[in-house]
Amino acid sequence: MGVKKKIYFFSEQKTDGSKSMSDVLGGKGANIAEMCRLGVPVPPGFTISTEECQSFLKKQDLGSNLKRDIKKNIGVLETLTKKSFGGNNPLLLSVRSGAKASMPGMMETVLNVGLTSKTTKDLIKISKNDRFVYDSYRRLIMMYADVVMEKGLGLGEGVGIREKMEFLLQKTKERKNYSSDSDVSAEDWKALIKKYLALVEKSFGVPFPDDHNEQLRGAIEAVFLSWNGKRAKEYRSFEKISDNVGTAVNVQSMVFGNLGKGCGTGVAFTRNPSSGENILFGEWLPNAQGEDVVAGTRTPQKVSGREKNSLEKEMPKAYKALEKTRKKLETHFKDMQDIEFTVENGKLWLLQTRTGKRSGAAAIKIATDMVSERLIKKDEALRRIKPEQVYESILKNIQEKELDGAVLLGKGLPAGPGAAVGQVVFTAEKAEALGKKGRDVVLVRRETSPEDIHGMRYASGILTERGGLTSHAALVARGWGKSCVVGFYGLKIAENNRSALFGKKKIKEGDWITLNGSDGSVFEKKLELFQQPIKDFEPLDLLLSWADRYRKLEVRTNADTPEDCVKALQFGAQGVGLCRTEHMFFNEKRILQFRKMILAGKRGDRLKHLDGLLPYQRKDFYKILKTMDGVPVTVRLLDPPFHEFLDIGEKEVGALAKSLKESKKELLRRVEQLQEINPMLGRRGCRLGISYPEITEMQAEAILGAALQLKKEKKKPRVEIMVPLVGSIEEFLNQKKIIVSVYERLSKKHKQKLVYKVGTMIEVPKACFSAKTIAKHADFFSFGTNDLTQTTFGFSRDDVGSFFPGYFEKEILSFDPFESIDKKSVGALMETAVKKGKAGNPVLSLGVCGEHGGDPKSITFCNKIGLHYVSCSPFRVPVARLAAAQAVL
Amino acid sequence: MGVKKKIYFFSEQKTDGSKSMSDVLGGKGANIAEMCRLGVPVPPGFTISTEECQSFLKKQDLGSNLKRDIKKNIGVLETLTKKSFGGNNPLLLSVRSGAKASMPGMMETVLNVGLTSKTTKDLIKISKNDRFVYDSYRRLIMMYADVVMEKGLGLGEGVGIREKMEFLLQKTKERKNYSSDSDVSAEDWKALIKKYLALVEKSFGVPFPDDHNEQLRGAIEAVFLSWNGKRAKEYRSFEKISDNVGTAVNVQSMVFGNLGKGCGTGVAFTRNPSSGENILFGEWLPNAQGEDVVAGTRTPQKVSGREKNSLEKEMPKAYKALEKTRKKLETHFKDMQDIEFTVENGKLWLLQTRTGKRSGAAAIKIATDMVSERLIKKDEALRRIKPEQVYESILKNIQEKELDGAVLLGKGLPAGPGAAVGQVVFTAEKAEALGKKGRDVVLVRRETSPEDIHGMRYASGILTERGGLTSHAALVARGWGKSCVVGFYGLKIAENNRSALFGKKKIKEGDWITLNGSDGSVFEKKLELFQQPIKDFEPLDLLLSWADRYRKLEVRTNADTPEDCVKALQFGAQGVGLCRTEHMFFNEKRILQFRKMILAGKRGDRLKHLDGLLPYQRKDFYKILKTMDGVPVTVRLLDPPFHEFLDIGEKEVGALAKSLKESKKELLRRVEQLQEINPMLGRRGCRLGISYPEITEMQAEAILGAALQLKKEKKKPRVEIMVPLVGSIEEFLNQKKIIVSVYERLSKKHKQKLVYKVGTMIEVPKACFSAKTIAKHADFFSFGTNDLTQTTFGFSRDDVGSFFPGYFEKEILSFDPFESIDKKSVGALMETAVKKGKAGNPVLSLGVCGEHGGDPKSITFCNKIGLHYVSCSPFRVPVARLAAAQAVL
Repeated sequence: MGVKKKIYFFSEQKTDGSKSMSDVLGGKGANIAEMCRLGVPVPPGFTISTEECQSFLKKQDLGSNLKRDIKKNIGVLETLTKKSFGGNNPLLLSVRSGAKASMPGMMETVLNVGLTSKTTKDLIKISKNDRFVYDSYRRLIMMYADVVMEKGLGLGEGVGIREKMEFLLQKTKERKNYSSDSDVSAEDWKALIKKYLALVEKSFGVPFPDDHNEQLRGAIEAVFLSWNGKRAKEYRSFEKISDNVGTAVNVQSMVFGNLGKGCGTGVAFTRNPSSGENILFGEWLPNAQGEDVVAGTRTPQKVSGREKNSLEKEMPKAYKALEKTRKKLETHFKDMQDIEFTVENGKLWLLQTRTGKRSGAAAIKIATDMVSERLIKKDEALRRIKPEQVYESILKNIQEKELDGAVLLGKGLPAGPGAAVGQVVFTAEKAEALGKKGRDVVLVRRETSPEDIHGMRYASGILTERGGLTSHAALVARGWGKSCVVGFYGLKIAENNRSALFGKKKIKEGDWITLNGSDGSVFEKKLELFQQPIKDFEPLDLLLSWADRYRKLEVRTNADTPEDCVKALQFGAQGVGLCRTEHMFFNEKRILQFRKMILAGKRGDRLKHLDGLLPYQRKDFYKILKTMDGVPVTVRLLDPPFHEFLDIGEKEVGALAKSLKESKKELLRRVEQLQEINPMLGRRGCRLGISYPEITEMQAEAILGAALQLKKEKKKPRVEIMVPLVGSIEEFLNQKKIIVSVYERLSKKHKQKLVYKVGTMIEVPKACFSAKTIAKHADFFSFGTNDLTQTTFGFSRDDVGSFFPGYFEKEILSFDPFESIDKKSVGALMETAVKKGKAGNPVLSLGVCGEHGGDPKSITFCNKIGLHYVSCSPFRVPVARLAAAQAVL
Repeated sequence: MGVKKKIYFFSEQKTDGSKSMSDVLGGKGANIAEMCRLGVPVPPGFTISTEECQSFLKKQDLGSNLKRDIKKNIGVLETLTKKSFGGNNPLLLSVRSGAKASMPGMMETVLNVGLTSKTTKDLIKISKNDRFVYDSYRRLIMMYADVVMEKGLGLGEGVGIREKMEFLLQKTKERKNYSSDSDVSAEDWKALIKKYLALVEKSFGVPFPDDHNEQLRGAIEAVFLSWNGKRAKEYRSFEKISDNVGTAVNVQSMVFGNLGKGCGTGVAFTRNPSSGENILFGEWLPNAQGEDVVAGTRTPQKVSGREKNSLEKEMPKAYKALEKTRKKLETHFKDMQDIEFTVENGKLWLLQTRTGKRSGAAAIKIATDMVSERLIKKDEALRRIKPEQVYESILKNIQEKELDGAVLLGKGLPAGPGAAVGQVVFTAEKAEALGKKGRDVVLVRRETSPEDIHGMRYASGILTERGGLTSHAALVARGWGKSCVVGFYGLKIAENNRSALFGKKKIKEGDWITLNGSDGSVFEKKLELFQQPIKDFEPLDLLLSWADRYRKLEVRTNADTPEDCVKALQFGAQGVGLCRTEHMFFNEKRILQFRKMILAGKRGDRLKHLDGLLPYQRKDFYKILKTMDGVPVTVRLLDPPFHEFLDIGEKEVGALAKSLKESKKELLRRVEQLQEINPMLGRRGCRLGISYPEITEMQAEAILGAALQLKKEKKKPRVEIMVPLVGSIEEFLNQKKIIVSVYERLSKKHKQKLVYKVGTMIEVPKACFSAKTIAKHADFFSFGTNDLTQTTFGFSRDDVGSFFPGYFEKEILSFDPFESIDKKSVGALMETAVKKGKAGNPVLSLGVCGEHGGDPKSITFCNKIGLHYVSCSPFRVPVARLAAAQAVL
């Protein structure tokens, strides 16, 4: 085998590497090699392997073998370019980093290596362009002093040489009244170079190296050393990239975009990274070197387009070459590319290509387009889209240009992605009142509770002082696809609910703000938003139709209203996996009746109030079942503890007492008696229905009555009644018996039969162990993974806010178990339940209806353990459809 | 093989059955057969098998074969007794039930069967005792009318024939001024019989059967039918006895204790059932039939003793025979017997023998005595005692005679067994004040909280309106072996805490009441109690010393104070398995400092207040470790959520604000911020120590500092530091690191090394799944089965009170999972943790420190899955020692 290759040469004539060698060449080096193989014009050069980086970092020396190989390769370069390194027709080099994984901006680059007091003169002679040469030289001095001398060698700690040099340049420009760098003359540069060289020697105690070989060695070593720079290390730790990989170094002959007319440099995407449109999309600058485009000192010009300063107009030949290259690259790489190019005296050179980052919408459009262009297959398109990109594609976002000059009021936790603008209101009532009038409002609350639901529905966005990513506000917002920021701790709402302090800034009711629920930032004023229109976004429809063909998991939705059902159907839901009945009671009229029912002293009174609620519930279910005709609708019986409905003041209790003809004192006592110390583990779920069978009876009557009515109307209702929080077979049978007997009574009365299912939620560990017996009597299991996570971890979703931030900071948690199922614990319990459940009932239907139902990682897991469906909020349905397909692929 | 035997004959001459045949003969029949085999004098007779009962209940007919067999056996009886059934020397029979499992008083008996208008005359002729004959006849009429005609045949619903006959007898006695039945003359009985016969015919529309065969058939059928009587069915349902077993019928020739002088009847235990003393202990009545002894119409006389009306004095010969029989029975049955006997004209007859019920103390004394009498082996003695009897033996109880005429105020849940008397107080402060003065007080509260601890300590008993068997009051009371009744719902405490309504009865502060924590009853006034002295109860010591030789499980105690430790050592604890550090802060001085620490705005302030707490904690641990020198002491780091320490009013917050130099408003905000929705699942356990490492640091310093000090003093402290509520290895390592670094610092400072352990509580399901990784770094696991049960079931101990009663009533729960480990769920998780834990660390020490550590069933389970120790409250230590031995046996 012999010694491993240390250096890989690349050029249009001879290339050692290829795309597949990114381990050794880094991403940039591998792609450059690939471009050479494709015949794309790339300035020749060579890549020093990542292994050499590791070895250098160990020995802090390049070693004689590597030095010899570098020299040999420089020789090949000299022959190819017909220039000579340090010679009279001087070869200049760029020295750039390039790790396997992209670490944008984290490591270093030195350009124009090889310029010395001697070669500058030679180059002026040959180029007849002294301004270009001095410009290039001052760039080298600046970069080298910063990257090699200050950072790499660690000379003169804290000098800040780059800032000092920028300052000197700034002073010159001010003195001479120049508005941009392009105004700076050759003479000016020359004078500055003198000052720079003096500054280097003064700052570091050593002169700037005037030897081309020393420059090259210094630049290579500095790039290697930058692998262990502070920023790079932090980035790797965050992105979980191993410290042992190392970076490659790309040494490449320079081409110049700053040689004057007919020259330029730019960056471009082979398609529009925002919309996905199939056109070359980028920016360039005439007479500039690469760093100028991104530095922001000059305003870049468009690459494509009819504007007179576009590349297309100014250098049509180069543009055509670029177009040709774009096609070549896409045909070869089969994905949208992000490229760097330079035009030197009319000739196009590609300096870099890599897979381009893109928005969710663009990702979808590009992938589907590439399928129709036959560049990729459908399964590849499905694999390529991150499920979150689907979510992103259907949400509003802030126009990027709007962020310039926007006043940031602060940052909270990104609880509901997408952006929202609206006028601030501090009560749910106001939100509803204004919302109904079609006004955009942002509801700002300390925290939200079920009683705020009516207002939340009308708000464009929700902002709360308290709560974490799984607080009430967050859950509701995500469910409805609303923008939401929680845990915004700078907020102090005035007691009169008319204004609030956002940090030090006072915001009054009616003032406009903008939320970015994707990153938690909150801005003053109304910023402009954009949104991919949902219905008209055909590529998404197309993509998901392919997904549907692959996936095995059915995707249902969590929906409590006919409106949610309609939305979910549009998104492709195949049924309702969780219809929560309690939300139906939070309507002004009903809540009163419901409270009376709860507080009734006698069973007889309770029955009376339940009778009052029955028609409402039946109507609710009628509408939902009609909307979801022919597909399954899983209705969960009443779940939350009673006192969740009793967040009322003394005055309201007084009114209730009057209408119930009871003493206020007695009623207050009952309200208090219903308080629980740990409501999450108290009398809720089936424990309620067991304590008060009449509630289960009423709900069963409403559900089955509605379904029987629909059957009469020749519809096809598919009802599944779900008993919540079951731990043992005894609990389940107690409730099932009530449901069955209600059915028998109604069926007789309506002279109508109905096929319906009765199943249970598996949401406490106990249930997983009883799964076999329960399954013998249950038609389905639906995992309530939220509660199962709460009980498995002993975490209250409502209370983790106090310690979760610390847990993430100290890396005690590497992910939020309320976002993704913890496979080792919650997942293990689910597997137990699935195994036992199937043993008890081979035709048992299995699903998930917790928040996790919309989480791609959890969906993969659900697919793996053999569930039949996942259920998630309407806005997550498209995400789940894709994720379910990916789980199979 | 042939047809199964329907009838089993017994007599001194010939006996078909034996002790081992209770399936077929019932308990009574089997033991009668056994007595016959032993040569104990038993009136001859036969037992109709339980299978015949099942068959009768199916067919509602005895069948011709059985009838034939009965006739045949009557023939044998006639021959043996030289009497004839229905003949001139009339044979009379008793017909009694007898199921396999004892169902005391649940089924029926008919005596004197065979007396008719004819045979009464014959018997008077032979016995020359008309009073005896009429007395016997009226007994037959009464029993037969009640048992056979009214209950068995269901004639005349709701007649209440027995009460009517009793009423007639009463009227006669009143008219004639008789004080007891023995004053009633032959003429009176004769007149009454006339009235009885008329009453029967009038009530049922049929005459009393005057045929001996009809009487026998009726009596046998009625006994069979009584198996399905309402009371019997309820009893079986409660005791979980199958409905399919059926009862046997014992038909036995009558012997008469009511033949006049030289006759009598009685019941006796072969040893004292209260104290266990080895003497014949019982009651008898001269000239009476069996039912008179228990009926309470005449005062029974003692069997043994020097009183002149004792059997020993009145009939020394019969007494001697009884003594001889006692020895014979005990030698044979090897246990204390409960017997019925009749003396007929000086001759002793045994009618029944069975294993006698006894008090806990008696059980222990009898078992240990029988070992020294070589009747049984030690392992049998250990097997025979129920662990709860050990507990009972060390508690106070109400003198039984005191219960006559005691006024019951109501019943709650029996939360802390044993009895207590005391003057009522309604605040912890009052309880402490009076208790300190040596007064007996019962603390009566709506419910208790940790702030009541100081008063609870001084109360003899605790009574609360609210809460279940695992409420705060119940847990604390059981821990301290205090009598406690909770869930006493009739209670309404006046707002001024000076009086309360117990139902309708008003009880003022200072009034005496008596609690029976073993059955939940509460009595007015001061009833007399008795208690087995603990230290002097040698049999218990002896028994437990045998237990210690058998058991594999170590028994530790849960103790937070040196006093508890001393008590636990006396009870034989082998270390402390759980020392809760939070209770140490509930002292007036410390709680203030602790609150300041909690509410401190800055880490610096918190450190200052922790520094203030350090010396207290170190002193606490010093004392405990010194008391427990040489044995392990497991100290749990701070566990409860902060707000448990902040149950304070605005006034106290004001005072705190002043002393902390903060605004009251700000402090109130902080107090509120610490409130949690589900504190059980909130920031507690190691989550506290991770949020505030300085608390762990202080506690580690206090624990290790105390241990190092003791080592200097040449003691042998064995410290185990326990991190609570760990779910993942990351949590554990975070806390362990702090402890280890504190140790290293202190060890250097003290120039002293110390062997100590660091382990964790396994109390959330998550931890069971992470057990392998955690065990790699932990020295021990201690299962916190309380919390593990809470999380596994999703039950909050504090809140189950609202639905547990219904769960038990509806048989959804068959036992309280907070009392006994639910093997299928919590147990399965424990097994997972044990298996994974041992895989991670083969020398891992494993224990249990939840309430279950003192529960015999749970101890058996812990032994089975290979734990090394259990830890329980001091009073449960003796129970656990025995249970651990039984687990092995």
